[in-house]
Amino acid sequence: MRTYDAYRQLAEQALVPMLSSLGEIPEPLKQAMCYSLEAGGKRIRPVLLMAACEAAGGTAETALPFACALEMIHTYSLIHDDLPAMDNDDLRRGKPTNHKVFGEDVAILAGDGLLNAAAELMAARAVRMGDLRGIRAMEIIMRRAGVTGMIAGQSVDVTSEGKEPREDLVSYIHSHKTADLLEAAVEAGLALAGAPEDQLAAGREYAYHMGLAFQMTDDLLDVRGDAAQMGKNTGMDGNKMTWVALRGIEGTERDAREEIDKAVRALKKLPGDTAFFADFARGILDRNS
Amino acid sequence: MRTYDAYRQLAEQALVPMLSSLGEIPEPLKQAMCYSLEAGGKRIRPVLLMAACEAAGGTAETALPFACALEMIHTYSLIHDDLPAMDNDDLRRGKPTNHKVFGEDVAILAGDGLLNAAAELMAARAVRMGDLRGIRAMEIIMRRAGVTGMIAGQSVDVTSEGKEPREDLVSYIHSHKTADLLEAAVEAGLALAGAPEDQLAAGREYAYHMGLAFQMTDDLLDVRGDAAQMGKNTGMDGNKMTWVALRGIEGTERDAREEIDKAVRALKKLPGDTAFFADFARGILDRNS
Repeated sequence: MRTYDAYRQLAEQALVPMLSSLGEIPEPLKQAMCYSLEAGGKRIRPVLLMAACEAAGGTAETALPFACALEMIHTYSLIHDDLPAMDNDDLRRGKPTNHKVFGEDVAILAGDGLLNAAAELMAARAVRMGDLRGIRAMEIIMRRAGVTGMIAGQSVDVTSEGKEPREDLVSYIHSHKTADLLEAAVEAGLALAGAPEDQLAAGREYAYHMGLAFQMTDDLLDVRGDAAQMGKNTGMDGNKMTWVALRGIEGTERDAREEIDKAVRALKKLPGDTAFFADFARGILDRNS
Repeated sequence: MRTYDAYRQLAEQALVPMLSSLGEIPEPLKQAMCYSLEAGGKRIRPVLLMAACEAAGGTAETALPFACALEMIHTYSLIHDDLPAMDNDDLRRGKPTNHKVFGEDVAILAGDGLLNAAAELMAARAVRMGDLRGIRAMEIIMRRAGVTGMIAGQSVDVTSEGKEPREDLVSYIHSHKTADLLEAAVEAGLALAGAPEDQLAAGREYAYHMGLAFQMTDDLLDVRGDAAQMGKNTGMDGNKMTWVALRGIEGTERDAREEIDKAVRALKKLPGDTAFFADFARGILDRNS
């Protein structure tokens, strides 16, 4: 096991080379894809994937292409989410959004390209691995990213805009839009190490509760934050389904703490040292970006 | 080997059930995805994939999930291509385009969803197949659909709009935007049957030339067609890179015939009865939709 920053650096340094390994990508498509890949962010998903793989006895190097693929999926979802027809955001992590720099047409294709590149990268790696671990991890990631996962959450978010916040809708959106890719990270990391199904289930449980808490603190940051700290226009989500709209600030803080407790408890079902994951979950309550 | 229509029917009947097999997809996302999947079309890619698999000794049933995945990829590319920020088309196959019916936000997500569903479906099937044929086919399809394949062609098409037609650009766009998915169909079908690399190469060669001819006759139909026959607004591609703009009508007809000859010659490198593929290629010259 390494530190969060060590995993993060591994992912940061590999993203563009992994993309380039696919072959010659025409400009400005490649530039647009790299612009958003290199826009920073906490790299939570690739970090968790590599950490889960190492925790279960695999290597971070085996996990790296899948970690990068997952970050590409996260990045494409942000590009499409920011489009004028979706959230219409001009800023993301303090920088102009993809379509502001490259135009909507290229931004749509850059998003499509990152999603396709993720699947391509994993498929190519799975062929080379020569056993079923890679394809199993890929199936987990594509399912969680897909139309019963992240995209489902995104679509309910989009189509419930302007409606009165309802707990079932907010739960659905949070669990799919945010928790699903975090579950994918932990579960795929474990699968790449060849961990058995009961460990995968424990990893999912951890990541599910941690993911809900993560989205709750995101909602809190949105309410409290100022544009400089978040690097995006805050308050833009005012008419959308959020946990804060449903529970208020204090209720959301309480719920987030409870979810973190559940996440940490789930770790007891995993063998070995799970301090990395407990620390990460507890850190969510103190996040300020 | 079956008839074109038999393969086509197999694909038509399987598309929505394959999508539903992924789990519960929220509305209106599912409806939007099904709307475009069920909008008709010739189903060339799934037909070729299944035919190639059977020609090389595999079964159409093994090939069916991959055939459906390929059609989902083709369908997503049409949805995104029709968006206001791209070609801004109101009609596709005689029906209102996806974003005209469901709104731009849902159409973007329906496109993302179909691309993701394709990868998910193939990964799930590859896991169940338990050997490397499925994952090999998947890698072929994702590569041809991706940022060095179809999306690359799309992006050069978009960014070269308004420029003087140039042979290198038109060739690049044709070969990637159209031929790549046809190559994927034949190559993946052969791979699913476990065909050796030299047969895959022959299949690619056939599909490449056939694909170029297909796009040339598409350009010809666009020039000659009327909206009723094509089911879309013709002449919309007037300021874009087309073979007709480069070679004129007669030159394009001549080039298309030459490409078909090359395609049919490539079939000689394949064992067994290749009449299905020769007939299909020759039929391209007589197409009227």
